[in-house]
Amino acid sequence: MAGNSFGTLFKLTSFGESHGEAIGGVIDGVPANVPLHVKLIQKDLDRRRPGQSAIVTQRNESDTVQILSGVFEGKTTGAPIGFIIQNSNHKSNDYEHIKDVYRPSHADFTYDKKYGNRDYRGGGRSSARETACRVVAGAVAKQMLSILGVQIHAYVDQIGELRIPQETPIDLSLIENNVVRCPVPELASRMEGLIKAVRKEGDTIGGAVACVVKDVPVGLGDPVFDKLHADLGKAMLSINAVKGFEYGSGFRGAVMRGSQHNDEILPDGKTKTNFSGGIQGGISNGAPIYMRVAFKPVATLMQDQESINAQGETVTVTGKGRHDPCVVPRAVVIVEAMAAMVILDHYLRSKTTQL
Amino acid sequence: MAGNSFGTLFKLTSFGESHGEAIGGVIDGVPANVPLHVKLIQKDLDRRRPGQSAIVTQRNESDTVQILSGVFEGKTTGAPIGFIIQNSNHKSNDYEHIKDVYRPSHADFTYDKKYGNRDYRGGGRSSARETACRVVAGAVAKQMLSILGVQIHAYVDQIGELRIPQETPIDLSLIENNVVRCPVPELASRMEGLIKAVRKEGDTIGGAVACVVKDVPVGLGDPVFDKLHADLGKAMLSINAVKGFEYGSGFRGAVMRGSQHNDEILPDGKTKTNFSGGIQGGISNGAPIYMRVAFKPVATLMQDQESINAQGETVTVTGKGRHDPCVVPRAVVIVEAMAAMVILDHYLRSKTTQL
Amino acid sequence: MAGNSFGTLFKLTSFGESHGEAIGGVIDGVPANVPLHVKLIQKDLDRRRPGQSAIVTQRNESDTVQILSGVFEGKTTGAPIGFIIQNSNHKSNDYEHIKDVYRPSHADFTYDKKYGNRDYRGGGRSSARETACRVVAGAVAKQMLSILGVQIHAYVDQIGELRIPQETPIDLSLIENNVVRCPVPELASRMEGLIKAVRKEGDTIGGAVACVVKDVPVGLGDPVFDKLHADLGKAMLSINAVKGFEYGSGFRGAVMRGSQHNDEILPDGKTKTNFSGGIQGGISNGAPIYMRVAFKPVATLMQDQESINAQGETVTVTGKGRHDPCVVPRAVVIVEAMAAMVILDHYLRSKTTQL
Amino acid sequence: MAGNSFGTLFKLTSFGESHGEAIGGVIDGVPANVPLHVKLIQKDLDRRRPGQSAIVTQRNESDTVQILSGVFEGKTTGAPIGFIIQNSNHKSNDYEHIKDVYRPSHADFTYDKKYGNRDYRGGGRSSARETACRVVAGAVAKQMLSILGVQIHAYVDQIGELRIPQETPIDLSLIENNVVRCPVPELASRMEGLIKAVRKEGDTIGGAVACVVKDVPVGLGDPVFDKLHADLGKAMLSINAVKGFEYGSGFRGAVMRGSQHNDEILPDGKTKTNFSGGIQGGISNGAPIYMRVAFKPVATLMQDQESINAQGETVTVTGKGRHDPCVVPRAVVIVEAMAAMVILDHYLRSKTTQL
Repeated sequence: MAGNSFGTLFKLTSFGESHGEAIGGVIDGVPANVPLHVKLIQKDLDRRRPGQSAIVTQRNESDTVQILSGVFEGKTTGAPIGFIIQNSNHKSNDYEHIKDVYRPSHADFTYDKKYGNRDYRGGGRSSARETACRVVAGAVAKQMLSILGVQIHAYVDQIGELRIPQETPIDLSLIENNVVRCPVPELASRMEGLIKAVRKEGDTIGGAVACVVKDVPVGLGDPVFDKLHADLGKAMLSINAVKGFEYGSGFRGAVMRGSQHNDEILPDGKTKTNFSGGIQGGISNGAPIYMRVAFKPVATLMQDQESINAQGETVTVTGKGRHDPCVVPRAVVIVEAMAAMVILDHYLRSKTTQL
Repeated sequence: MAGNSFGTLFKLTSFGESHGEAIGGVIDGVPANVPLHVKLIQKDLDRRRPGQSAIVTQRNESDTVQILSGVFEGKTTGAPIGFIIQNSNHKSNDYEHIKDVYRPSHADFTYDKKYGNRDYRGGGRSSARETACRVVAGAVAKQMLSILGVQIHAYVDQIGELRIPQETPIDLSLIENNVVRCPVPELASRMEGLIKAVRKEGDTIGGAVACVVKDVPVGLGDPVFDKLHADLGKAMLSINAVKGFEYGSGFRGAVMRGSQHNDEILPDGKTKTNFSGGIQGGISNGAPIYMRVAFKPVATLMQDQESINAQGETVTVTGKGRHDPCVVPRAVVIVEAMAAMVILDHYLRSKTTQL
Repeated sequence: MAGNSFGTLFKLTSFGESHGEAIGGVIDGVPANVPLHVKLIQKDLDRRRPGQSAIVTQRNESDTVQILSGVFEGKTTGAPIGFIIQNSNHKSNDYEHIKDVYRPSHADFTYDKKYGNRDYRGGGRSSARETACRVVAGAVAKQMLSILGVQIHAYVDQIGELRIPQETPIDLSLIENNVVRCPVPELASRMEGLIKAVRKEGDTIGGAVACVVKDVPVGLGDPVFDKLHADLGKAMLSINAVKGFEYGSGFRGAVMRGSQHNDEILPDGKTKTNFSGGIQGGISNGAPIYMRVAFKPVATLMQDQESINAQGETVTVTGKGRHDPCVVPRAVVIVEAMAAMVILDHYLRSKTTQL
Repeated sequence: MAGNSFGTLFKLTSFGESHGEAIGGVIDGVPANVPLHVKLIQKDLDRRRPGQSAIVTQRNESDTVQILSGVFEGKTTGAPIGFIIQNSNHKSNDYEHIKDVYRPSHADFTYDKKYGNRDYRGGGRSSARETACRVVAGAVAKQMLSILGVQIHAYVDQIGELRIPQETPIDLSLIENNVVRCPVPELASRMEGLIKAVRKEGDTIGGAVACVVKDVPVGLGDPVFDKLHADLGKAMLSINAVKGFEYGSGFRGAVMRGSQHNDEILPDGKTKTNFSGGIQGGISNGAPIYMRVAFKPVATLMQDQESINAQGETVTVTGKGRHDPCVVPRAVVIVEAMAAMVILDHYLRSKTTQL
């Protein structure tokens, strides 16, 4: 069944393989008559693109978005926005050597078994390249949310064992000041060092992205199944390499007592604490939404690994090509994009709660 | 927008408030011509029901399911299964005292703001009572999955600080041997003690449920947005009180190197380790699916709490009634139910992958 | 795949067989905080119910709706409305004789082949009894639309060869004055006579229902696939026994020239003619929406018919029981209900067109 | 709300304006591992394209499809098929003169009111140009259906008053032998003459397309709302200029008696007559599916018409440009495309009816 659409009212449908001619998508349900700046979309794509710094893959792709429809004289028309991003490397033969090899912890084996055939060029549809389309749709959503006053900021909270201590005050304006996108400068440089060391070993490393959404209108989220955090969770878990999601107190909530965890409501309607993470009963309460997303280490190593091929024969997978030692810094903008799509979608949904 | 349906091909739509006349639902997309045992549904409802043991709420409700349609002569017909569960306590006036009070960390404030009015009786639609309907649909799904050989087992992995150590071998047959539903007997009795101590203080406590799904067919899950673990994550996060979800290596994956985390593929197609948690590229690979779900402590305390009412006046919320000191033992069957619905839905979806 | 839900934001999911314990449904996406009168729902059910007049089936069923959720203190809460209608005749053995017979032009053969088994009691799920649930949801929608000023009126336009001549002025207040529900009194009595004559022969007869929706807000309908008339068409075609749908000029439009058919726009924004039927480019333009729905004659005859059984043997199907000689008069309220659901759904959708 | 997707398992999402840079779409849920011939898609596009004969618009557009993803080494991969068709005329200024004019019976007025702004170039999104994307998706579906043995043929049944008499035997192989696409040669040439005469007057004319689907598997269609003919009806009614839909006996069924209309089932399981039109109870019974679709005359005339502009001032709309005097011959392939999408979608759905 079709699984390439995300959202209900504001909806992205994406297509494209890492080594096909182009990737792209259709954004449907875009509110009409809103100014749209393509430059801001491109800016987010640049935050995601390969080759942007010394700690990401050195493949150099420009990832330029072309908007094909839905925008006229600088404004959205309410018609669907079709867009494409050309693949610069689609003539590559780099992947001939893994044609029928099942790389460990990749999607090679499962795609082959599920679909009966496999586009082996760079992972095909299973490549994280598709996340560029999420960034485009997210950047459109962000421009809408910005009009509504909603602000979304994600940052690197953890690389391997290095993690921002729990009570550290975060200055969100520092995020883009370093290549790791960690707002704690001293930690950022240690994280950068760690990523470089890991790369030198031909290895990769995981981490976590935190995301804060501020000034969310009260009332977003649709119980009982489409709770706001349930849709945010699905959004994040659908990103390549994500292994976990938590919001508010998260897994720490499991060790707490109710008397500690309950957020006392103050006379002004705000809460003293925010263990709820801005969402109560699945509905936003106006406090900042706080979530955290865990990423596993990239599966492509610059080391030899044992595996099998489609014929069931033992093979050695040799590391080759230019890959990310750690995707977490590039994932920051993807997390923001997914958050933006969910929040805008639920904003539109909330307009239909009353007559 | 409507948020009371879950699933795409196998789909539950539920209704009902904690103190209305009845709760119930419609299960659509039920495969036809399959024997259905109402007794097995009731058995799972009994695992969820209040009053079942000394560590859960002492409200005594029988929660008897009535199947109204979709089953004829003991078999499913392919028509939707309508069902209801009568509310025994729907005449209660117990909640008059919280009529316009916003209880801390409940959905009172957000429901009131979103809907413009509020069924204040026991939380209305926001009550965890609706999860009984999930158990019914999950029990139907389980019977289908059982024919396919799929086995689903959830258990209590953590209560407060007490957690099953990571490498402990788990004997799934021991889960139902104690009221906590923890398969490690010694730990189970300490957990039981902890819950009782917490209740004595008028407090509540959180925890975590682990779930293992075995013998899943290879090929379930629909990239890129409907990855199997993304749908499982949404399923779990939509359960009341859930704050986090992880699968496979989960948040631990963030601290690992790729060389540790990659699951080497053995000549027989199985993997040496299972950090992937049975899912690669969003698609099941046949290895056991392992996930973990964090629950916050129940918000209803038997202690006084400060809060405000709908008029913005400061009020004291007094603990009253019979409530759970810890929902985690009762949540085990709800986690199983949600897992079963997702797995069956994706099994049906997978039938359409090829012509 | 699940096919028992209708609508996107305002959504009915129904269940139930003609001879099961009850039929019912869940209405999700109901706007919150709107007064709801159960009496008005019951009034529409009474317009549909068997035994209401001398020209419909003489089975006497009360069809009393019970609302189980989603309404509190006389107002909608935004939670789903669950409802049931008990089946008074569900212990009947009347259908034993057609257990494995395929009745001509019924769904017996197709249900058996599709589902592999069949609830043969009175057609099971394929019985028009399910339309009672549509009437309930339609009556809820009507009460919402009435607040918005939208008025929906359906009437019998044709019974067999007797049809209201094209340019006849229609007084909608006369519809309920006769048992046929035809607003042209003289024709109504001829129609009544025709239906009685047909019944005497043990035969049945078809007809058509017209429906007018007035004071529809401008801007309802979502191009390109969810055009307002496309959704109205699907709504009507999903009713039992419907064979055709047209709106505005309809099939007559096929013989017209553009110069005749174009609706000239007058200085006040209204149109001189209304061949467009109130919808242009799939979007309502504020003019009355006019549509027409064709019904085939009921398949159950009080005559002997040749057919086969599940074993492929030739059998004679004997007419038996109490059936409608013509469903068209009872279908009037069903057509209204489907129209109301579509219009309200698109009204809610239209609220999300702009930010 | 998003309205640019069609289908449930096999799903087209389209985008593009008549005078934007390109139109295109994403086809999701394409069964994997099936050979796909781009030439056959192009062949159907050529049957739809402007400039193909003397009786259609003389604009000359090549309408060449580019497949961007989802196909690898000549076979579908199960990934979504992204495609675009460049617009050759997107720099045109032809429409400056109607910039704020509401053309009679076009979507100008309704789009303006709904979206708050309007892409006035050639109708923008409301242009029938979007149907080219339907043809692409339909041609993909046809190739899948052809493997299953299903055959779809549409033809012109009526132009203005000229209609194929009801009992005329139809030789489907003759359809493409004339520019009108009417399989009755003598009538085809009269139709051609009529269209030419109408064009000479600067006028336009309506008509009807018939469609026959043969060798449909038994069991397609999902009661109660997604009956096969209800989905076919919505499909057809969503095509520009369509005013009515009927199947089987259609509107003629309204004048028939049950004893005439019932399709007697013969010992071999087939039916003596086919007034049911191949569908009983919403489910295909294996007999040919027969439907008929009414098209109104094109609204763009080469005559002066009175109207108003966005300021409410009276204006004269002058005919200009190259337009179709009759769209019905070009619509034949669009009707086939929509039928193919519905049938394939329901074929895939039917695979999930039993476990």
